[in-house]
Amino acid sequence: MTPFDILLQQIAFIHEIDKLKYITRKTRLFNSDRHENDAEHSWHLAMMALVLAEHANEPVDVLKVVKMLLLHDLVEIDAGDTFLFDTVLNHANTEAERKAALRIFGLLPQKQADEFLQLWEEFEAGETAEAKFARTMDRLEPLLQNVSNQGGTWREYNVSYERVMQKTEGMQNGSRTLYDFAVALMDSSVEKGILKKAETDI
Amino acid sequence: MTPFDILLQQIAFIHEIDKLKYITRKTRLFNSDRHENDAEHSWHLAMMALVLAEHANEPVDVLKVVKMLLLHDLVEIDAGDTFLFDTVLNHANTEAERKAALRIFGLLPQKQADEFLQLWEEFEAGETAEAKFARTMDRLEPLLQNVSNQGGTWREYNVSYERVMQKTEGMQNGSRTLYDFAVALMDSSVEKGILKKAETDI
Repeated sequence: MTPFDILLQQIAFIHEIDKLKYITRKTRLFNSDRHENDAEHSWHLAMMALVLAEHANEPVDVLKVVKMLLLHDLVEIDAGDTFLFDTVLNHANTEAERKAALRIFGLLPQKQADEFLQLWEEFEAGETAEAKFARTMDRLEPLLQNVSNQGGTWREYNVSYERVMQKTEGMQNGSRTLYDFAVALMDSSVEKGILKKAETDI
Repeated sequence: MTPFDILLQQIAFIHEIDKLKYITRKTRLFNSDRHENDAEHSWHLAMMALVLAEHANEPVDVLKVVKMLLLHDLVEIDAGDTFLFDTVLNHANTEAERKAALRIFGLLPQKQADEFLQLWEEFEAGETAEAKFARTMDRLEPLLQNVSNQGGTWREYNVSYERVMQKTEGMQNGSRTLYDFAVALMDSSVEKGILKKAETDI
């Protein structure tokens, strides 16, 4: 493997990941009808991590968090976007996503392929301080978007407060401050009528 | 200023920068007719920096490079995109861009506003190892896009090999390896007829 071969592998990866710009999410841009794509989403989460890192429960390696966020959705190039509130598919590290990770990161020189695969698996596992904080960013962005879109996907897909809470609870692991903020936003969304509590079973 | 006030300023910034997703560039996605927007572009450059950092002439602080790339185009929210090959407007740190930087970064708590403004100015000045390498990413991406789009903006705006070379030369400051690669791509583009040398004056 010559240094030029290594560069060609890296360039092939850079070409391939352009496809992330075509993966459309359910959520929409702030105050907008236009759906967000995964590249825009990944950029926004990385910016959020730079801005909000001080609110992490534990000190985090910001570069590692940013790397995770920039690459966390690349598997969706092959596996497609899984909606946060999907009631059938579970996002958690499916076989299709793992296969995608091996193919896409596998375009890179071995050492980088290994590093990126490891970062993706660490993000999915959500056990390290960096993964917990990165996952907190991934939960916070759609919440902010839905609030700014008068309910957004909550209204569009009839998602209850309780269901949103299930997905929001994990934010505590990354940042109690941001979790508290998220719950306050959810509560005020209920007051505004853009997020509904589930009917109580009798 | 309470910690909650600080958080609110950060959230206001996170809302505001969503607008980067609406700033359309002249270049198009790889093998595509769809124009790229600045958020997608910023994400792609940050990924490129992670992948290509080993080719920098000098060792670089990768986090700093990534920060610069993630935020380098935020000023275009107010100032608009300046086309690389624009023959009238010069991109270099215009008054409109500086005003935009002050307004947009100024939404953040003072310490972060100062840090982001400084990073943007460092990127624009292009004098540190990190800024040189970051600017090399910013030159390489449209070149790769134009090659994959049978000439892309070179053909669309009738940009000559010599003019592309003017813009490519600076890549040497960030990475001689990537500069050599870029020149090889340009030369093969001339052979393929998708980039034209200027008519020689007589």
